[in-house]
Amino acid sequence: MRKLEDFDVALIYREDKGERFLRSLIGKRYLFVCVAGSTETSLIEGITVAGASPRLTLYTPAADVEYLLLGRCRCIESIPITPEGVPTPALITRAALRLVDAPALVVDGGSYVEPGVPHVDVGGSPSRDIRTGSAIDYDRALESYRRSVALGRELSKLCDYLVVGESIPAGTTTALAVLMALGVDAKNKVSSAMPNNPHGLKARVAEEALMKAGLAPGSFSDPLEVVSRVGDPMMPCFAGLVVGAVDSVPVIMAGGTQMAAIAAVIKSLREDALDNVIVGTTRWIVEDGSSDIRGLISQVAEVPIAAAVLDFSKSSIEGLRFYERGYVKEGVGAGGSSVAAMIASGGRVDSSRILSKVEEDYVSLKAKGYVE
Amino acid sequence: MRKLEDFDVALIYREDKGERFLRSLIGKRYLFVCVAGSTETSLIEGITVAGASPRLTLYTPAADVEYLLLGRCRCIESIPITPEGVPTPALITRAALRLVDAPALVVDGGSYVEPGVPHVDVGGSPSRDIRTGSAIDYDRALESYRRSVALGRELSKLCDYLVVGESIPAGTTTALAVLMALGVDAKNKVSSAMPNNPHGLKARVAEEALMKAGLAPGSFSDPLEVVSRVGDPMMPCFAGLVVGAVDSVPVIMAGGTQMAAIAAVIKSLREDALDNVIVGTTRWIVEDGSSDIRGLISQVAEVPIAAAVLDFSKSSIEGLRFYERGYVKEGVGAGGSSVAAMIASGGRVDSSRILSKVEEDYVSLKAKGYVE
Repeated sequence: MRKLEDFDVALIYREDKGERFLRSLIGKRYLFVCVAGSTETSLIEGITVAGASPRLTLYTPAADVEYLLLGRCRCIESIPITPEGVPTPALITRAALRLVDAPALVVDGGSYVEPGVPHVDVGGSPSRDIRTGSAIDYDRALESYRRSVALGRELSKLCDYLVVGESIPAGTTTALAVLMALGVDAKNKVSSAMPNNPHGLKARVAEEALMKAGLAPGSFSDPLEVVSRVGDPMMPCFAGLVVGAVDSVPVIMAGGTQMAAIAAVIKSLREDALDNVIVGTTRWIVEDGSSDIRGLISQVAEVPIAAAVLDFSKSSIEGLRFYERGYVKEGVGAGGSSVAAMIASGGRVDSSRILSKVEEDYVSLKAKGYVE
Repeated sequence: MRKLEDFDVALIYREDKGERFLRSLIGKRYLFVCVAGSTETSLIEGITVAGASPRLTLYTPAADVEYLLLGRCRCIESIPITPEGVPTPALITRAALRLVDAPALVVDGGSYVEPGVPHVDVGGSPSRDIRTGSAIDYDRALESYRRSVALGRELSKLCDYLVVGESIPAGTTTALAVLMALGVDAKNKVSSAMPNNPHGLKARVAEEALMKAGLAPGSFSDPLEVVSRVGDPMMPCFAGLVVGAVDSVPVIMAGGTQMAAIAAVIKSLREDALDNVIVGTTRWIVEDGSSDIRGLISQVAEVPIAAAVLDFSKSSIEGLRFYERGYVKEGVGAGGSSVAAMIASGGRVDSSRILSKVEEDYVSLKAKGYVE
């Protein structure tokens, strides 16, 4: 791990390339795109805490993107929280965006609840539990991918670089299944929003999915077929956005271990598309002992990993201090958009300014009754 | 009418302000946004030719925006044409965009057919025949307006200026009804895609709409109420985009006489929003003897009008020469996006280059069987 001088950013893998990539973006204009999606896999008891209950995980993606654009949610009363009350990482993403007045665009990859904010429709829909072995209709996955490529192409004309994030509860489990199908050694390596990563449960779900889909690990041909069988609706959309944009502009793939699955899908579709991307995540992901983002990404491609060195240990707000105890860690592009805000501002925005802004927003939400 | 030196652009109203506005945009980066919408008013026999038959007018908006992004339609086999075979002005818009590699974004204000390209959902829906006096549910119109304001705000961070266009068959009739309700003397002044402007039919439809809605001409309070009663779903979306964007960037409202209705709605919502806009249209509109864009706009506000001086009289393609005989005239932001391409390129793109590009595209469509 290497610190990027003048920035609260750490480089974890392919550090030289990552440093060149980020330095070339200093002061440049970016667009943050957030892909929302739902999979009924998130209803499995114990698999995710991205919502106060399994049922509420279906509302989290829409609520996250509503909060991102409006500063409040519409489809649920309060902001998304874990059962323990730890608040959504969308707090971090919105704070980072607003500190540099960066634009945000929501893309509905297939959210169970329609977001109550403007959102791009790419023809996606929520997916079934991957244990069915047929998560998404293939035609829909292909349509979503193609429309997202077209969208990425247009968006790349509007900014110097793109930052793409996602919100999809149970996304690390679907990522595990896709990684396994694509031949990546991923067991016990994907992260979790819980301090006690339920690796056993995730592996059982992923294995059942692969079995039902008739996919032997590593024996794939069409990556969109894999996604449609055992993946989720965020994936074809996210991959399409990246593929559509990278010929014109660099892309920061903002997320945790799920980014390895997206990268693996992209690699199988168009390998050179990964030359112009890095993964942007949080310190909590790269320091997590229960997952291995470096081990995953390095199996797929030489894509640099950069982490926002966020530190909530001294926060006055208990829910935020929980981030230091292994809760949440990442999501809604929190890490990548923090990195982007730091780089865009030439370092003026740092970890402590992001924390202050998050705390200010949290206090204001609390005053309005939008958090417990 | 005054020529803008070095450009194939004519200034028609508030010429000095229009010239300053356009000169400030030379070489700047713009985003073209196209709002698609449908109203069942377009099913009235004889009211519009924006489709080969009344039924097909419901497909025209989706087909137009599909053509815009893909160069071919998905929801219908060929590109939209009038019953006489005159092709859609989307040909002009796409040619202008591509000559300067400008980005385009589709917003679904409420299209009868879902566009088969990425499109922003603002919660709109197709509207009923305005003769019902209740074209759109009020809540939907308000939701569309609000989401579009939020969208306009984000998009304004991505470009130096916005160009907003629309595709909605029978849009001049709904514009007439809204203008009448808002107290503008509009009878016999809105334009038509036909050489023989059916003013009598339009006036009867608009009057019936106002009567059914219980709106005496000029006796309105809430402009969104007027839009929801006798307007169309493009209007709240278009108005919202403009209102959301103008605090940060100038906006070219790209369209014909319908722009007077949008401007009147905006004026009633937030009068100062019109300080930072011009109307961009075509020569065919400003020279049309059967309508009066200047007379309409000047009743609403001191918004400059600029026209792309397009000339298809010498085209080798008969369908394009029909534009010189009063067919089509405008639509899909053809005029405004031609103006923008000329200004963005510093005059390198002119009327003849746009015609050449349109002809090239038309020939290619014909070779593929996408036009008769």
